[in-house]
Amino acid sequence: MTPVPRAPHNVFVHDAPGGGCTRAWTNYFELPVEYTVEMYTDLLNPANPTLAHRHRPAGTPARRFLVVDAAVAEVYGARLAAYFDAQGIPTRTLILRGEEENKTLPAVHALFEALVDFGLHRREPILAIGGGVVLDIVGFAASMYRRGVPYIRVPTTLLALVDASVGVKTGVDWADPVHGGLKNRMGAFYPPLAAFLDVAFVATQDERNVVNGLGEVMKLALVRSAELFALLEVHGRALIDSRFGGVAPAPAPAPTPAAAASTATDADAGEAATTTAAAATTAATIAPVATRVVELSVQMMLEELGPNLWEANLERVVDYGHTFSKILEMNHPAGPDGLMHGEAVNLDGVLCVVLSARRGWIDGATRDRILRVMARLALPTWHDGCGVEVLWAGLVDAVEHRGGRQRLPLVTAIGEAVVVNDVTLEELGEALAELRALHQPGGMLHRSLVGGK
Amino acid sequence: MTPVPRAPHNVFVHDAPGGGCTRAWTNYFELPVEYTVEMYTDLLNPANPTLAHRHRPAGTPARRFLVVDAAVAEVYGARLAAYFDAQGIPTRTLILRGEEENKTLPAVHALFEALVDFGLHRREPILAIGGGVVLDIVGFAASMYRRGVPYIRVPTTLLALVDASVGVKTGVDWADPVHGGLKNRMGAFYPPLAAFLDVAFVATQDERNVVNGLGEVMKLALVRSAELFALLEVHGRALIDSRFGGVAPAPAPAPTPAAAASTATDADAGEAATTTAAAATTAATIAPVATRVVELSVQMMLEELGPNLWEANLERVVDYGHTFSKILEMNHPAGPDGLMHGEAVNLDGVLCVVLSARRGWIDGATRDRILRVMARLALPTWHDGCGVEVLWAGLVDAVEHRGGRQRLPLVTAIGEAVVVNDVTLEELGEALAELRALHQPGGMLHRSLVGGK
Repeated sequence: MTPVPRAPHNVFVHDAPGGGCTRAWTNYFELPVEYTVEMYTDLLNPANPTLAHRHRPAGTPARRFLVVDAAVAEVYGARLAAYFDAQGIPTRTLILRGEEENKTLPAVHALFEALVDFGLHRREPILAIGGGVVLDIVGFAASMYRRGVPYIRVPTTLLALVDASVGVKTGVDWADPVHGGLKNRMGAFYPPLAAFLDVAFVATQDERNVVNGLGEVMKLALVRSAELFALLEVHGRALIDSRFGGVAPAPAPAPTPAAAASTATDADAGEAATTTAAAATTAATIAPVATRVVELSVQMMLEELGPNLWEANLERVVDYGHTFSKILEMNHPAGPDGLMHGEAVNLDGVLCVVLSARRGWIDGATRDRILRVMARLALPTWHDGCGVEVLWAGLVDAVEHRGGRQRLPLVTAIGEAVVVNDVTLEELGEALAELRALHQPGGMLHRSLVGGK
Repeated sequence: MTPVPRAPHNVFVHDAPGGGCTRAWTNYFELPVEYTVEMYTDLLNPANPTLAHRHRPAGTPARRFLVVDAAVAEVYGARLAAYFDAQGIPTRTLILRGEEENKTLPAVHALFEALVDFGLHRREPILAIGGGVVLDIVGFAASMYRRGVPYIRVPTTLLALVDASVGVKTGVDWADPVHGGLKNRMGAFYPPLAAFLDVAFVATQDERNVVNGLGEVMKLALVRSAELFALLEVHGRALIDSRFGGVAPAPAPAPTPAAAASTATDADAGEAATTTAAAATTAATIAPVATRVVELSVQMMLEELGPNLWEANLERVVDYGHTFSKILEMNHPAGPDGLMHGEAVNLDGVLCVVLSARRGWIDGATRDRILRVMARLALPTWHDGCGVEVLWAGLVDAVEHRGGRQRLPLVTAIGEAVVVNDVTLEELGEALAELRALHQPGGMLHRSLVGGK
């Protein structure tokens, strides 16, 4: 076969490859892909034209089709309605539940029905406002409707701000009785037109959700940025307590001392009071740090994804924490007793820290420094679902997904990572036993496990 | 906003666009897309390694996952099984029905189930063997499974050889009680790894299906190639009768003259005998013409699609015949009394010929030459579903799909086309009335309508 010339927009005839082939063409094309990630301070201000007008192309009606996370609609629904009223832009809104168990094909189907009914034009963007689940569903549906319509991501959780908003992945889970749950088994690489980021949405998240987002921030810090890690180490607790410098959480119906005592232990009540005080004192000063943490996270993520958006290269350090975590998430669906995405990522990530340390790639002091920061941020470092058979099955599934090799990212220093293919069942079991031991009486993570969040 | 540099794999920070934006990044990427279209003469020969081995990547199991059109399984199932046996490659086969009404999300869902069960690897290609419906379903499912797995198209109908195999479009239809049927409303631009073309599959198609394929060939001839049109004019009838130079159709249970007379008019029987004789005499000499017609069609289609694979430019001359045809197809689903895709395309195309002639862009002789070739090939030129309101609704839907403008391709000569945006309801009505009159007694298409195929 003659060498194939490479130029954009090139259809050419070349020698046949044999096997009875009489004529062959190659169609070679370079598809330009572009999207923007934009940080805003005041998206819901009725005077800010962004949500109503930005990226609304000429030739489409003056209207917006919104998909809003049910949890967001509850908190921000009235403000959103007032905003679009003030801007004079009529809207149609579909509310979608943002829990992981809703991230399935039927949700995509519901969105199709609404889009058909609305008569969305081919160049008219959908505005998706919510957490990662809603952004993933909308992105996936947008990739398919009319073979692709534009969409804009407006993330409302810390996790979505630093993760789901930045890349081009969309998708839903698959579950069946035989094969169980398969995360993101169907999806598309489909960039948004833009992502509009506003850290202020974090103000109304509860602590667990903020910590959940920090799971992805921690991942980026470990594989890419010592600066980001240092910010988490020094300011992580204040970032949580102040909700990233947004509005400090109002203690929901302010309890009298007596009422508090009746519903919680004294220790709990005392801790809550301390937290509220800390939030009040740090909210003003922490804002620039919060902005910097999100900026660094977005920058690191874009730099990693940029040259590899379609994952032609399957060795991705941003897969750190995403090898064993998938099966944990599917086995323990989010909920009071289940695992959220960032939590599962951290469980995977801490195990990989132990694997690195056991191989001598990071020293004990570095390992312990990482573990201490995780504990201080209340990032989970142990879960009883972490059996060696389960995690091994997760690795086997990752191999299937990563073109036949493990491609497991491991840190070699804070902010640096490599990818390995040679982890054995035995090595995994030993690392897991060591991680478990750290959580038993006398282990450095024992307090964090029993204290809990 | 500062001018944005353009280079592949480029993440950069730029000035904020206003509206409270404090920081903005653009991620710009050029996705390389490549696929091959390969013509073969002997794909099912047990000694030909192509179907079993080509594009089977290292690191994936020695096996093939096949999706086979039910109609193909019936005719070629035993040969396919023997072929893979001879090649020593185990297969898993999913059979899908190839009728348009099966081109829906549930078919995609059935394929997902089979893929999960099979455990298809991320780099392991699916082999799709069938007509356009099956190729479209498989391509769409492949675009989604694991966010994209490779697939290979093996078209078995003339229509799929020259149309569905060549481009990157996949998709399914949508139907609901309120909005009716919407063709290809969900789909993806998703190139195959390769298309393996073998004209021999046309041998087992019935006449109507061959003519159906010629509808797309005629379209390409009208907008791109006077040479292709001339081949259709001179050899079109022989191409049909000889099944593109493949095996001439065996007259299904060879009737005695008496039996023939009992089930058909004398005229019908006489015509059938003539046809069979013509097939026998032309099969040997027509083969090079058949190859040239497919080659030219593929080449024209690739050249048109090549620079515009993702339809960034919505003015596409290959949309010729695809403006009014969608609504006709959905209103008259394929079947004995319904319309096939190539038939609907020709109904649209002939109306556009009349529109062109009425505007004086082609002269009467050219118009009549085109109409005569269509009639000789038994391409339909009238259908009672062609009401002006229906066709206008089709145009309105096309406007929605084409970014707010009609972008209707019209021919200006055989092999040349332009795109217009100014067709009025009145002009459409007048053209339709003229086309209808051509089919009434005394009109030049009257015989072709009442003779029928």
